[in-house]
Amino acid sequence: MPISETWLLPDGVADVLPEQARVIEDLRRKSLDFLASRGYQLVYTPFIEYIESLSSLSESNQDLDLATFKVIDQLSGRLLGVRADMTPQVARIDAHVHPVEGVARYCYAGTVLHTKPQGFNTTRAPLQLGAELFGSDSIDADVEMIDLMVSLIEEAGLAEGIHLDLGHVGLFRSLVAQAGLSKAAERQLSDLYQRKALPELKEFTATLNFGQDFYVLGRYASDLDALKNQLSAEVLANPAFKQALDALITTQSEIQARWPELEIGVDVVELRSYHYHTGLMYAVYAPNRAVPLAQGGRYDGIGEHFGRARPATGFSCDLYMLSAGKFAAAQVVVAPKGTDAALLNAIQATRAQGLSVIQLLGNDELSSVPYATHQLVNVDGEWTVKTI
Amino acid sequence: MPISETWLLPDGVADVLPEQARVIEDLRRKSLDFLASRGYQLVYTPFIEYIESLSSLSESNQDLDLATFKVIDQLSGRLLGVRADMTPQVARIDAHVHPVEGVARYCYAGTVLHTKPQGFNTTRAPLQLGAELFGSDSIDADVEMIDLMVSLIEEAGLAEGIHLDLGHVGLFRSLVAQAGLSKAAERQLSDLYQRKALPELKEFTATLNFGQDFYVLGRYASDLDALKNQLSAEVLANPAFKQALDALITTQSEIQARWPELEIGVDVVELRSYHYHTGLMYAVYAPNRAVPLAQGGRYDGIGEHFGRARPATGFSCDLYMLSAGKFAAAQVVVAPKGTDAALLNAIQATRAQGLSVIQLLGNDELSSVPYATHQLVNVDGEWTVKTI
Repeated sequence: MPISETWLLPDGVADVLPEQARVIEDLRRKSLDFLASRGYQLVYTPFIEYIESLSSLSESNQDLDLATFKVIDQLSGRLLGVRADMTPQVARIDAHVHPVEGVARYCYAGTVLHTKPQGFNTTRAPLQLGAELFGSDSIDADVEMIDLMVSLIEEAGLAEGIHLDLGHVGLFRSLVAQAGLSKAAERQLSDLYQRKALPELKEFTATLNFGQDFYVLGRYASDLDALKNQLSAEVLANPAFKQALDALITTQSEIQARWPELEIGVDVVELRSYHYHTGLMYAVYAPNRAVPLAQGGRYDGIGEHFGRARPATGFSCDLYMLSAGKFAAAQVVVAPKGTDAALLNAIQATRAQGLSVIQLLGNDELSSVPYATHQLVNVDGEWTVKTI
Repeated sequence: MPISETWLLPDGVADVLPEQARVIEDLRRKSLDFLASRGYQLVYTPFIEYIESLSSLSESNQDLDLATFKVIDQLSGRLLGVRADMTPQVARIDAHVHPVEGVARYCYAGTVLHTKPQGFNTTRAPLQLGAELFGSDSIDADVEMIDLMVSLIEEAGLAEGIHLDLGHVGLFRSLVAQAGLSKAAERQLSDLYQRKALPELKEFTATLNFGQDFYVLGRYASDLDALKNQLSAEVLANPAFKQALDALITTQSEIQARWPELEIGVDVVELRSYHYHTGLMYAVYAPNRAVPLAQGGRYDGIGEHFGRARPATGFSCDLYMLSAGKFAAAQVVVAPKGTDAALLNAIQATRAQGLSVIQLLGNDELSSVPYATHQLVNVDGEWTVKTI
């Protein structure tokens, strides 16, 4: 391979240079400190695991399996996966490695890899940051998680114009159960909802059991009052349906009470990660961005794969998205060569103020550090930091 | 696969639980801040790259290539490697992505993966932290790097009883050139030196050109004065040999002047990473540990692979080794459920002090947070943090 191509990076993979790395590093620290202040305990999860462990979600979510790079373990001969999502790893920790009785809260930040970009113009190596809460099925837990997610976006300075989307897989799922729908019909409906294809939906639901209700669910997906007026009494009285609808209403009003300015939308047929989630789903969108800034939801029972099924809710985001476009160059002070005590003391004092100080090497001149912003100069016997 | 095995992790791979993750996270931040204060600019390098880019060192260092997990890129059909060492990546950045005229200093911290553990009882996923300096061939640069490495170990609280080992590939290499040794003889000598097999060395060197000098090099490898007395005048006068020996002497005395208490040893036939390094090599050992705490050396010309050969020197270490065995549990405060302003203010104030505060969910009792250490209680109308 010619030299000129050696340094090209694969698509969807990038270096992070100092100006942006500083910003991301700061955001990473601030975010983890914020989550710690809310009682979320930091864990580091392994970069590679046996594929069976990573696929606890992928049994019902083939996308995750397809997104996972696989390699052979030379030690065991078994198949390893490179983590594409840290959520199943944290569920494994909750189930087995660090089994807390009661409620457990964890946070994490780390690179995950995807075999292909998961959206237009997106990275294959997001810096995933997230929080997970295990052991509580109360709505309080979902409200806490959404509050955490919105607060984090506010901390990152991106709160302007954001939009919170709420969904709940329980409405569609319980209606499917009530109607006794076939898997094929369920898939087709789910697809029509995703495409917001109302005329086709009308036609398709005309012959279905509970067809009018399925149509109303799609037609008034974002209007909880209209749903209550238009759905049949039988559907509204169904305990599973009612519980899901009530959870959505309560969550919306509790979040609105905490964030009076926040724009909150509801979409009861947003089935994005339908097979993976088991209850409330939430996502925050920024203006003019197709991909959510952060998203999550309830996925009770994830730990079953590891022998300990517990209620679970959590969210994650990509720190690169939360810091996109921000840069900050460091202030770099250059000091002359030398070992006399006054100079060394001045260097140490300047570093203690949080500045970077470089001492010249060999016969180098100031020009050997072209990105220097300041220099340490001796003015009347006093070492002083001056702008270059 | 039965549930009981799903959660087992591959050999040499581990979860890091909250008590230890806090310690490592702190050490990571402290180390990067320390390196920044010395003018080393943070970069994040990609987790995967085309194998050709990662192998800039491995042309002469097959070990690195064998340590690299390989996967096929579904987008390009080309072979990708998961980084096993971040040094070649930083060299690529210096050569092409962020080409600084003059001297460039970079630091980094991130997980690297190895196909097999690189030593007895070592991880396959070290958290590599390191610093690299490009563009200076002065001894000052090596001295700065060694000082940085020792200072970092002191920051980590591990300075007690450490030992600095210095080597220089230039002595052996220039003697090999002077003697016109065959590749086979060079390899055999290098092996005898590694094994410290003096009788065999004596026998083997008896018939070699410059044989007595090769023997003396091994026999007095740690004694620079003896080397100067015992080596032939012809060898000592060789410019490349002389330069290497002088570099070693100067470095040792400059480091000793900065760290008067530090135990410094020299080994001129320590050829650990002989094919990779081009000059001084340095490693810090802790008492009773076979693997160095940190190590590095000069590897001028690494950027040639990327079209820009520059002088380079750097070191790296595994943050897990620098934090081994240390744990710190968080203080966790539990607050009752509720939204009244006094309670919420008290929670916020407690978090602002740097404490973790969890508010109870649903109908949960204090026991739902078994790892709680404190609680927020109302004493005569005042919210107060009390030990549990």
